[in-house]
Amino acid sequence: MSIRERLKAEGLEIPVAPKPVAAYVPATRTGNLLFTAGQLPLRDGVMVKEGKVGLDVTVEEAKELAKICALNCLAAVETLVAVEKIVKVVRLVGYVNAIPGFTAQPAVINGASELFVALWGEDGKHARSAIGVADLPLNAPIELELTVEVSD
Amino acid sequence: MSIRERLKAEGLEIPVAPKPVAAYVPATRTGNLLFTAGQLPLRDGVMVKEGKVGLDVTVEEAKELAKICALNCLAAVETLVAVEKIVKVVRLVGYVNAIPGFTAQPAVINGASELFVALWGEDGKHARSAIGVADLPLNAPIELELTVEVSD
Amino acid sequence: MSIRERLKAEGLEIPVAPKPVAAYVPATRTGNLLFTAGQLPLRDGVMVKEGKVGLDVTVEEAKELAKICALNCLAAVETLVAVEKIVKVVRLVGYVNAIPGFTAQPAVINGASELFVALWGEDGKHARSAIGVADLPLNAPIELELTVEVSD
Repeated sequence: MSIRERLKAEGLEIPVAPKPVAAYVPATRTGNLLFTAGQLPLRDGVMVKEGKVGLDVTVEEAKELAKICALNCLAAVETLVAVEKIVKVVRLVGYVNAIPGFTAQPAVINGASELFVALWGEDGKHARSAIGVADLPLNAPIELELTVEVSD
Repeated sequence: MSIRERLKAEGLEIPVAPKPVAAYVPATRTGNLLFTAGQLPLRDGVMVKEGKVGLDVTVEEAKELAKICALNCLAAVETLVAVEKIVKVVRLVGYVNAIPGFTAQPAVINGASELFVALWGEDGKHARSAIGVADLPLNAPIELELTVEVSD
Repeated sequence: MSIRERLKAEGLEIPVAPKPVAAYVPATRTGNLLFTAGQLPLRDGVMVKEGKVGLDVTVEEAKELAKICALNCLAAVETLVAVEKIVKVVRLVGYVNAIPGFTAQPAVINGASELFVALWGEDGKHARSAIGVADLPLNAPIELELTVEVSD
């Protein structure tokens, strides 16, 4: 099954890459490594949910938002190469904007990690950092940054 | 025009790399990738402005500080290779130390992103994450970390 | 002296890699670069100290915790290749969960940086960012993420 078919089987599709909110691009490539810009849970240019996890957004909702960020990461990849060219998901950093004392960042970012494993199996398993941050651009609850290896 | 001439045309020059504030080096190279340490808005070893964006530092001032951080990133690169060897600006992470509820991190980090585009054009356009953080070393308002690709 | 012998001389040994707290792996490799997941100060699956630096944890204690995170980074590397294969420590990011106004992140992360320099000398000197964050997974005081270059 192609990645696009697997996405469809999950009821998902890769959106058009969100326009960067400033003077940069959605993704860059150097050799076989591709780095995405930090991706917010935007859909059609609108933040799906704003605010802090634990106050404005539940953990379950945040996990869904992480999946939207992950799809936006794939959209960012597709500005340079087709996702079918991804041979390994290398690294994911997940920044979670939550209320003070929130420590369930890993459960939130799993919304993205589990999608990558569903799409690429063993090659979808990545190194990951999950961090609780003070604030995020546009009052986003989550920001995700992805590094992948692509084939020639 | 060389990068050094372009900088001069912008009224800028690359400083001497700030001495790392701890047990590390300004930059490392692996293959054709060069990673800088996080750079603070230090000039001649002194923090140009301290404190939180939105309280001690305006957004406009913070944008100027991001440009100083960017120049320090280039200074860090030059501890290993001349900036003329940079073929692509790959990745920028911008950490902004601001008051609670601050969400204009992208406008601040543009001070660096716009400089890279002014210097390298299309090759200066990079993947970027902008993050709001709780605090930074030495009470810096901004910290920037840069990854570039250099030629052999 | 091998790295393992140097560690022994420091009174240290590499633990078994902590099980990731979610849907990811301790480390990934792409070419000669190896990226670890963010590592917490876990020992035998237990957080050695929880809470905020400056409140629950002193700077000196936090520096020791950073060393434990560093050992866990090496354990993560060893899930893929022996640490003897590390030819260069490339990049370290240190996230410090501290009380508001804390600015001694560099002193904390030195607990890791100094270990790498003790083990690899010049090749252990790395690019580094130290960041103050709002919160960390499982209420960890510190999280470290490491990138190294390994030989074929």
